[in-house]
Amino acid sequence: MKALEFHRKLKGKIETRPKAKVSSKNLHLIYTPGVAEVTRTIAKDLGNSFIYTARGNNVAIITDGSRTIGVGKTFAEASLPVMEGKAVLFKSLAGIDAYPLCLASKSAREIVRTIEILAPNFSAFNIEDIESPKCFEIMEQLEKKNIISFHDDQQGAAIAVLAGLLNALKALKKDLKKVKICLAGAGAAGYGVFKILKEMKVKNLIVLDSQGIIFRNGKEKNRYFREIALATNPKNIKGGLDEAIRGADVFIGLTGKAGLLKSSQVAFMVEDPIIFSLSNPEPEILEPEIRKVRSNYIYATGRSDFPNQINNASVFPWVFRGILDNKKGVDWKSSVRIAKAIASLVSRPSRSKILPKIFDKRIGKAVLSGF
Amino acid sequence: MKALEFHRKLKGKIETRPKAKVSSKNLHLIYTPGVAEVTRTIAKDLGNSFIYTARGNNVAIITDGSRTIGVGKTFAEASLPVMEGKAVLFKSLAGIDAYPLCLASKSAREIVRTIEILAPNFSAFNIEDIESPKCFEIMEQLEKKNIISFHDDQQGAAIAVLAGLLNALKALKKDLKKVKICLAGAGAAGYGVFKILKEMKVKNLIVLDSQGIIFRNGKEKNRYFREIALATNPKNIKGGLDEAIRGADVFIGLTGKAGLLKSSQVAFMVEDPIIFSLSNPEPEILEPEIRKVRSNYIYATGRSDFPNQINNASVFPWVFRGILDNKKGVDWKSSVRIAKAIASLVSRPSRSKILPKIFDKRIGKAVLSGF
Repeated sequence: MKALEFHRKLKGKIETRPKAKVSSKNLHLIYTPGVAEVTRTIAKDLGNSFIYTARGNNVAIITDGSRTIGVGKTFAEASLPVMEGKAVLFKSLAGIDAYPLCLASKSAREIVRTIEILAPNFSAFNIEDIESPKCFEIMEQLEKKNIISFHDDQQGAAIAVLAGLLNALKALKKDLKKVKICLAGAGAAGYGVFKILKEMKVKNLIVLDSQGIIFRNGKEKNRYFREIALATNPKNIKGGLDEAIRGADVFIGLTGKAGLLKSSQVAFMVEDPIIFSLSNPEPEILEPEIRKVRSNYIYATGRSDFPNQINNASVFPWVFRGILDNKKGVDWKSSVRIAKAIASLVSRPSRSKILPKIFDKRIGKAVLSGF
Repeated sequence: MKALEFHRKLKGKIETRPKAKVSSKNLHLIYTPGVAEVTRTIAKDLGNSFIYTARGNNVAIITDGSRTIGVGKTFAEASLPVMEGKAVLFKSLAGIDAYPLCLASKSAREIVRTIEILAPNFSAFNIEDIESPKCFEIMEQLEKKNIISFHDDQQGAAIAVLAGLLNALKALKKDLKKVKICLAGAGAAGYGVFKILKEMKVKNLIVLDSQGIIFRNGKEKNRYFREIALATNPKNIKGGLDEAIRGADVFIGLTGKAGLLKSSQVAFMVEDPIIFSLSNPEPEILEPEIRKVRSNYIYATGRSDFPNQINNASVFPWVFRGILDNKKGVDWKSSVRIAKAIASLVSRPSRSKILPKIFDKRIGKAVLSGF
């Protein structure tokens, strides 16, 4: 009940605020007739909208509510508290004015068109909690239309996971190119982690979705699965989590399935495994389950109330600060640079400390250095 | 240059602000995992979005930039400073969180659909600076879809004009039902003033658009002009402003045409005329021109830097406060009640004082009493 009470009391988590106190002395500047001079200046050169309005610092947080935390596929309204939470982080961490806009449409075409129609008000768009592969299609369309966007579930998650993984491996003195990684979940976050690991030239990666291991058979579900099949699973094995996790150094869970990973399966992993159980709010496995079969391990979740938090919460506001300041999006190369910069903030990574704390003030500078 | 400087320095006039300071202590409430409890509560009953998010106090200001102050038909970007100005007034006067959303689409169908898609985030929509008759079509469509909207150019202007007119007539001891009114302009504001005067059962009203007097001939431009033709111009006269203004007690200008009304035409009016020259930023006539032919008159404009300001700036924030508090829109009957309540704030109207000052703190209560 605590979260409900908190939200009801505040009546939502963000508000709009005038930057200047209005009075009869400045109304002619803020509104008519003075504002006409500003409209004329922008009409002459639309780029002036970035200078004379709030647009230069405005980001829209767009979702359709099809992958909402805690409820999965739902109506846009239910996504509002999550997007407001993101808006709070945008402003608190990186000083960005973010507008939660949850859309009552589940159509990729219509979502892209709505974003295009809303574009004059914003510098960039944060795409959020939209089911895959729709979210990928939307991102591709936006790129074609030169609308600067960042898909936080995909790109933000990938950056946070890589940063954590680099340091976990460092703590255990292991080499990213030599370890076996079992990645459970091929939705937006899973696909993003796959993309950034591919960029890192990881060799031994097995990706699973709810149907099991993704392998090459020419009948992959869609072209994103085809891309995964071609670049992972070198021995092209088939099967489920039991088969995929055998001998794995690393498990990365991004499945949305609480309790998916059993201690019996952890027992199939190497002696000192890395387990990133990142589903939110309920992870794929809880620490006591791991302890049943392993005494040494590195465990991380996405939760702020557990240790070793791997969460894009500290990443995306700064990525957008970089996007706004540099007037360009991020690709996988810059994502890797950002992840490495975040990882480097922990000088001596250990089992209990693989990432800086979420509100570590140095994260901003690190992220911006990756642009 | 003063307005440009003002805007450049502030970098826009509104920002988003968290209602709670975020920290590692409350992140689990603001964001994951706590927020999941809120998403589940809203998913169960979408109405809960009004209780647990900012939606209950959120209004979107929608325009397509087709009737932008100072530039007329332009791109959405140029409208941003006007909509930000409105957002400042929304919050400063009535505590409402208003989001300027200038749309890159000129299609009525697409604008309505965009509003429908955005509906989950807002309690109501303010339709603004969209050319007529498109704006009327949009309002009709939104009503059919049960989306609460207020067309400020039309309804807000009508309320402000009627309030001013009631007191101007009172100052001159004239009867609304007996005077002759010449209304120049049949766009959104002109049509709104026509509608509220019709609601007031005004008998002798002549309406003009840029083509001249609107009269009944079965070939009216559109159904809104047909509606005007049927309800005004009792003698069905034809012609231009010269013909329309002859013997008029009242001139109401909402044409967007600076200098439209000449002193030679004021000379056609009654001895002690009421002249509301409301085009912004440049009125249809300036006071010195009137003074050439009349020593007694009541003159009002929409500008905040002239006396007798008739401007919806003080009306629309409170109308929306009423809409949000009562969860319903306003019709012409409630519009009349609101206008009368505003007028009643001036106990003894005079030539130089027909309306309360724009930031008169009593306006809010008066407007709300009309609901």
